[in-house]
Amino acid sequence: MDKLGLYTKFTAYEGSRDRLAELLLEAAGGMEAVQGCDLYVVNLQDNDASSVWVTEIWSDPSAHQASLSLEESKRLIQEARPLIAGIEQIKLLPLGGKGM
Amino acid sequence: MDKLGLYTKFTAYEGSRDRLAELLLEAAGGMEAVQGCDLYVVNLQDNDASSVWVTEIWSDPSAHQASLSLEESKRLIQEARPLIAGIEQIKLLPLGGKGM
Repeated sequence: MDKLGLYTKFTAYEGSRDRLAELLLEAAGGMEAVQGCDLYVVNLQDNDASSVWVTEIWSDPSAHQASLSLEESKRLIQEARPLIAGIEQIKLLPLGGKGM
Repeated sequence: MDKLGLYTKFTAYEGSRDRLAELLLEAAGGMEAVQGCDLYVVNLQDNDASSVWVTEIWSDPSAHQASLSLEESKRLIQEARPLIAGIEQIKLLPLGGKGM
C-alpha cells in the first residue's frame, strides 16, 4: 500500500494564527496514539503572519481517513473552524528518505 | 535555536521527473550521516507528472547551510541541474508534533 503525504496550509483570520497553531499542536498530541500516522508536524510560515502548515505522512490513505472521524479530531475541527479563513492542500506520494 | 523547515518543489523537464526523484533519494541517503538533519523526505505530487517535493527539518539553519557545501551535495546538485526547470521553496518554523 502506498503511503500518503499531505502539506495542508491553514490561513487564519487576523490575530487568530497563534491560537490555531495551539489547536493543531493539540491535534498532533492526539496523533501520538493513532496507528498509521507516521508524521504530523505543525509549522509557522516564515514572513507570513497568517499561515500555519501541517506536514503529515500516513502509512496508507485509509488510516488518514479513519483519523478524521475520531471524536478528538471532530472536537478540534469544530473548535478551529471559526479561526480559519481558508485551507489549501497538496497531496503527495512519499517515496522515501531520512526520518520516515 | 529555532529549527528550520523547508518544502522545496522541483519542477522537472518533461520525462525527467523520475530520474530527478532518484537523485534526490540518493541525496536523502547521504543525509543519514548528516548531523542536524532530522527529516529529508522525497515525494511525488499527486496528479502532477513534473513535480518532486522534498520535505526537510533541520535542528538549526546553520546545519542546513553547512550541508549545501558537502562534496556529495555539490555533486548531486551538479547532476540534477540539467533536469530541473524550476524550484520554489516555502520556509517554515516547525513548532512540534509527532515524529520530530
